[in-house]
Amino acid sequence: MSGTAAERVGIDVGGSAIKAGRVGADGSVHAKQNWDAPHFDRGPAHVLDGIAELARSLGVRDALGIGVPGLLDRARGFLIESPNLPNFKALDVRGELARRLGLDPARVHVENDANAAAVGEQWLGGARGERDALVLTLGTGIGGGLILNGELFAGEGMAGEVGHVVIAPGGRACGCGRAGCVEQYASATAARRRALEAGLPKDAPGDLKRLTELARTADGAERALCFEVGRDLGRGLGPVLCLLDIRCFVFGGGFSAALDVLEPGIRAGIEERSYGERQHSVRLLRATLGPKAGWIGAAKLAF
Amino acid sequence: MSGTAAERVGIDVGGSAIKAGRVGADGSVHAKQNWDAPHFDRGPAHVLDGIAELARSLGVRDALGIGVPGLLDRARGFLIESPNLPNFKALDVRGELARRLGLDPARVHVENDANAAAVGEQWLGGARGERDALVLTLGTGIGGGLILNGELFAGEGMAGEVGHVVIAPGGRACGCGRAGCVEQYASATAARRRALEAGLPKDAPGDLKRLTELARTADGAERALCFEVGRDLGRGLGPVLCLLDIRCFVFGGGFSAALDVLEPGIRAGIEERSYGERQHSVRLLRATLGPKAGWIGAAKLAF
Repeated sequence: MSGTAAERVGIDVGGSAIKAGRVGADGSVHAKQNWDAPHFDRGPAHVLDGIAELARSLGVRDALGIGVPGLLDRARGFLIESPNLPNFKALDVRGELARRLGLDPARVHVENDANAAAVGEQWLGGARGERDALVLTLGTGIGGGLILNGELFAGEGMAGEVGHVVIAPGGRACGCGRAGCVEQYASATAARRRALEAGLPKDAPGDLKRLTELARTADGAERALCFEVGRDLGRGLGPVLCLLDIRCFVFGGGFSAALDVLEPGIRAGIEERSYGERQHSVRLLRATLGPKAGWIGAAKLAF
Repeated sequence: MSGTAAERVGIDVGGSAIKAGRVGADGSVHAKQNWDAPHFDRGPAHVLDGIAELARSLGVRDALGIGVPGLLDRARGFLIESPNLPNFKALDVRGELARRLGLDPARVHVENDANAAAVGEQWLGGARGERDALVLTLGTGIGGGLILNGELFAGEGMAGEVGHVVIAPGGRACGCGRAGCVEQYASATAARRRALEAGLPKDAPGDLKRLTELARTADGAERALCFEVGRDLGRGLGPVLCLLDIRCFVFGGGFSAALDVLEPGIRAGIEERSYGERQHSVRLLRATLGPKAGWIGAAKLAF
């Protein structure tokens, strides 16, 4: 396989797999490849070797994009730290990959993984063509990437962290060290915990897929719980409307499959925490690229 | 007086005065003029006549910018409604002024007043040269305008409304119809109310100037109250860091004179409602253009 100048390789570093692909400037996906279950415990050099190998096998030419989870120094392409990859600290991702692949470091674009996914969804997915949108990922936590004026907006590097908007002051402790963050109430993990606590659904407590099915079919305890979870999510989105007045929210991640049953709650939560007529024109959309969003976005950023 | 092509007239419609001036492309202020105590109760036509007169006397040529309080249809230059000017509704500000002044409507730029002030401060004031900043006005309420990537960001038109970020769910009722909005705790009006309730300062309850002086000179009840008010303000800014990761906040409006005594509280509130290392690089600055910010920004938008 060999890429052409009008194609870019994108890579998405996830906790359980490293996904990659090659994408044309026209949005055509030419090849994709996964590295399942990489041994992060063998250290950064091992993982970077594997990523370089993946890029080579996809025919990387003169530019590459990579999405990594964690706190970045985006200007330098450094991973400062990554909560999920404890031994990946102060890592010169750009320099190390450029050296391994013989690329100009300026052509290696390093981005936060949620931001890369947002770019992917805006380019080819659920946020396609949207000028302003917040792309959320409902998973272990709640990640987010902001598209403003058609471009990724990262601020000083960590914009879009909607998961840590405090919706319940003095509420549940969060891994970030604060309390009451929305991801403690409305991530997939939080929803599972709430379902378990409520003993729902009765035949399979904590099973979100089953919970969602039941919420969809009958007006019972499962639907009420989904409403509560959705409302908490909407409470976290209220400040987004107040501050940015954007009306398009795109939901990805495993739990976004429940968007239809979460929607009434989400709208109630937004209504409670923002004002004016704008709530009525809010659109809640599903992400469509699934696990490809990250590497497609990373590839886009490398053009 | 006569303006040149490299100058613009800017107008700021406030509740107690309409302020205007002419500004050069280089930021030089050539003339200013106020219309004190306009009779808003005589209706929109009367006020628009007066604004046109003001613009003519300032030598308006082919373009004009105007900041108005309220909800706009920015694309059409319409004032949809204005909470402070009840009989100004569905008003074609752009068309009416263009007709009165013989201007091309496309050259009449209508903007929200807080947004216009933010543009002014970023051009020539306290946010000068900042790439990303939130410019706040601490007055009757808390207004805000967002500068992102060096440009005004308005979203669908109402971005920057930080005053209505909910910091205390189920808290004090707000004029917006919701409860617990930050402006119910940290605007000048709210601070005055809190001071009155606390009987502070003892010699002049509710006098914010005196309260601030005492907070500055001694570690007593006045300082503690300013800390509380500041902390509530900071709680409203926490989501701004989470969502946008911007680090520059510029405070204008009468109550911003108290910024030095509010600052410890503001930082504590931000710390409580956002996370990571970014809090430490937050800069809290004073706006410097005072009542000129609005019309200077409006003029800038007309270039």
